[in-house]
Amino acid sequence: MYERLAQRVADLIDHGTLRPGDRVPSVRRMVAQQSVSVSTVLQAYQLLESRGFIEARPQSGFYVRARRWTPPAEPEMFRPASGSKKTNLADLVMECVDALNRPGLVRLGAAVAAPELFPTRELHRALASANRRHPLLGNTLDPSIGLPALRIETARRALESGCTLAPDDIIITNGATEALHLCLRAVANRGDTIAVESPTYFGVLQLIEVLGMRVCEIPTYPQEGVCLDELVERIERCRVKACVFMTNFSNPLGSCMPDDKKERLVQLLAEREIPLIEDDIFGSLAFGPNRPHTAKAFDRQGLVLLCDAFTKTLAPGYRIGWTAPGRFKAAVHRLKHVCSCANPVVTQLALAEFLGSGSYEHHLRRLRRTYAGLVERMREAVARHFPGGTRVTRPQGGHVLWVELPGNPDALELHREALAEGISIAPGPLFSARQQYRNCLRLNCANPWTDPLEQAVAKLGRMAARH
Amino acid sequence: MYERLAQRVADLIDHGTLRPGDRVPSVRRMVAQQSVSVSTVLQAYQLLESRGFIEARPQSGFYVRARRWTPPAEPEMFRPASGSKKTNLADLVMECVDALNRPGLVRLGAAVAAPELFPTRELHRALASANRRHPLLGNTLDPSIGLPALRIETARRALESGCTLAPDDIIITNGATEALHLCLRAVANRGDTIAVESPTYFGVLQLIEVLGMRVCEIPTYPQEGVCLDELVERIERCRVKACVFMTNFSNPLGSCMPDDKKERLVQLLAEREIPLIEDDIFGSLAFGPNRPHTAKAFDRQGLVLLCDAFTKTLAPGYRIGWTAPGRFKAAVHRLKHVCSCANPVVTQLALAEFLGSGSYEHHLRRLRRTYAGLVERMREAVARHFPGGTRVTRPQGGHVLWVELPGNPDALELHREALAEGISIAPGPLFSARQQYRNCLRLNCANPWTDPLEQAVAKLGRMAARH
Repeated sequence: MYERLAQRVADLIDHGTLRPGDRVPSVRRMVAQQSVSVSTVLQAYQLLESRGFIEARPQSGFYVRARRWTPPAEPEMFRPASGSKKTNLADLVMECVDALNRPGLVRLGAAVAAPELFPTRELHRALASANRRHPLLGNTLDPSIGLPALRIETARRALESGCTLAPDDIIITNGATEALHLCLRAVANRGDTIAVESPTYFGVLQLIEVLGMRVCEIPTYPQEGVCLDELVERIERCRVKACVFMTNFSNPLGSCMPDDKKERLVQLLAEREIPLIEDDIFGSLAFGPNRPHTAKAFDRQGLVLLCDAFTKTLAPGYRIGWTAPGRFKAAVHRLKHVCSCANPVVTQLALAEFLGSGSYEHHLRRLRRTYAGLVERMREAVARHFPGGTRVTRPQGGHVLWVELPGNPDALELHREALAEGISIAPGPLFSARQQYRNCLRLNCANPWTDPLEQAVAKLGRMAARH
Repeated sequence: MYERLAQRVADLIDHGTLRPGDRVPSVRRMVAQQSVSVSTVLQAYQLLESRGFIEARPQSGFYVRARRWTPPAEPEMFRPASGSKKTNLADLVMECVDALNRPGLVRLGAAVAAPELFPTRELHRALASANRRHPLLGNTLDPSIGLPALRIETARRALESGCTLAPDDIIITNGATEALHLCLRAVANRGDTIAVESPTYFGVLQLIEVLGMRVCEIPTYPQEGVCLDELVERIERCRVKACVFMTNFSNPLGSCMPDDKKERLVQLLAEREIPLIEDDIFGSLAFGPNRPHTAKAFDRQGLVLLCDAFTKTLAPGYRIGWTAPGRFKAAVHRLKHVCSCANPVVTQLALAEFLGSGSYEHHLRRLRRTYAGLVERMREAVARHFPGGTRVTRPQGGHVLWVELPGNPDALELHREALAEGISIAPGPLFSARQQYRNCLRLNCANPWTDPLEQAVAKLGRMAARH
């Protein structure tokens, strides 16, 4: 609700209706004009403030901030070729992954956060404290669906995305990647067609490839996710067996499907008995004060398999993910047991302890503000340094940007040139089964903003201009 | 070498040639008689002592210990039906796994050690210390093949099994199960036939089942592993694509393939270009002073994919495994990256720290003595409490026993009855693609010996007698 209001005000600013120094309509006036509550307006203004659009002046109200840059246009809806396809991304992805491990890189490639953004010492202390209190438990084989204490804490947090989960609905995994892997295997077989957003996270494309399945790419709006009409049409034409969507702050587009659209999505899939694997790994990284719902929140048939992890929000080095696979729980549990037997216990203990302490909520609020600021700074840097005509997404959460370059550049070439200059990026073709999006790239914004980072973006912009 | 000598002396004792109270031939005499070195004889006697066959009397030499029990006969070679087969074990295994999680069980089912057998506090301290020294590293995403420090320590230890590995030959995994999973996928496809020992670890059968492959069970000697003649014959008949063998202290038989036989195995597979996935998870749990080689030690073609873990020897709750997949390294790495992306770093740091401190070798020596004693005690308890005619394996390492009951009992029934009495066992049919071995069961010996444990074995023996 407040997100839409914030968006409307941001549009007024972008289009010049409200200009730097202008006073934004007062809360009271906005309430009357828009028929919304005071708290909705306050939330919207808070969001705009955290994103640098407006600033509060004491005893005076909110004002449009002076901007030294013109926000770039956003990309249009993407229209991948229709039909299903086998993918062959492995070589390209491994080339990029190998590059990630080089020391001294400016890391704009992988969607990975700098560790200093996390309360790592506090987390390590929780680990040490849990081990002191349960010295043997931490070194026990746990072939179950996960440590009960952690599943309880996870179920509690799922409430915020509108899900009512019992701890027993949840299976702990080795990051969201394992969760996606197991869920895909549970709902589909070799040769089946899986619908994905386009562009979509290359990890999902690789999983589909490894499992011998086919990909059907669905046209996707950069703001609100897959186009449902196109989805329905392609479900029938390609005989889609299952969907894998990131409904909230998708990777790489940052699109966030409005909650009422999620409800329609769940319903139209339920009518066709098509499972939805929902990757919500960025869902709790909303820039606004409240996180959006998951599609799982609207699931009445057990057809939504929610996959999530604490790797993007708290503890990449602990690699704890989870899934609530609905009616596929027994199948997913079985696959988990066969393919990796059990999860480490010592890390689950630490996470349960940390979550139980209440420190997580505090950290998450801070992290969301940080990401809102970093994403906006990166948009500004791209606007300043990239060639005119460059388009950039305007996500409301997460920490990646999708950049569409003007003209006819080759992002793979750009990726290799940038790497030679010590900068990693994620080239567009990674995000498509057909290796389209050669004029696009994804930028990771989860690095503290520094001069070398600004210089790297400037250098990247000059390279892009030459292409 | 010394193992064979120890075996010969143990046979003399078992057959009554040497009786309780008899003096065992002196070291000097044995050296002369058998043309072996002093250290070989000493190692053999040390092994026999740790297994309770003989005892040292000060200034007097070694004597046969008084035995209050007659060692049971060992099982014969197993002859599974020939031909390849699809398996369908999932339901049975999940039933047994679910049973494992019940609190208060006497755990003779899963091959899992009681946590008090491990230096868990020391390990947790290593974890805390590593985190203090590298606070950020422990919370970093590591999408590589594993932490360099841990791969270096792992490669060092592989020397003891005769392997010369570079740290870069090694890929860290989530336990040995993930290693086996990735290796199987790297060497074979759906529909391919995989040769396994018979009986074999049900986890391997389940993996083959989940991957849509077929199983070819190879007749196996309880002492020295698969019969090579039968293997050659079945490789040709069933068009075997790859083998998965536990060459050292196999699960469940405890068989240990002599090193020269391993060399022949590697050679005959190399001649046919057939990869061998070698599961060495019990290899470093030899009862004698030295551990046997792995088949990997004889691999010149990169066709042996060695899989191992620290879960049986040190840290079940940390779930760190590894594989040295030879010429399949790139494929295994790619699969690892796609299917679970990365390993937790915080646990790898702890293990590297612990291994580097030298504490592991000390712990392992003690653990091997402990297991030697516990396995022997379990054999004694079975001899005392189980019906006459029961056969039991006599492994030289690991911590499981394979028990063959007389008559025509139903181990699945026995398993359910035992569970109702609070005792878990692993019924024989779990270990066969055809669910053979209904007269067999596997007992886990890695629990400290207590009166309730003795009573549980006695109760189990009475149940077995009724069958």
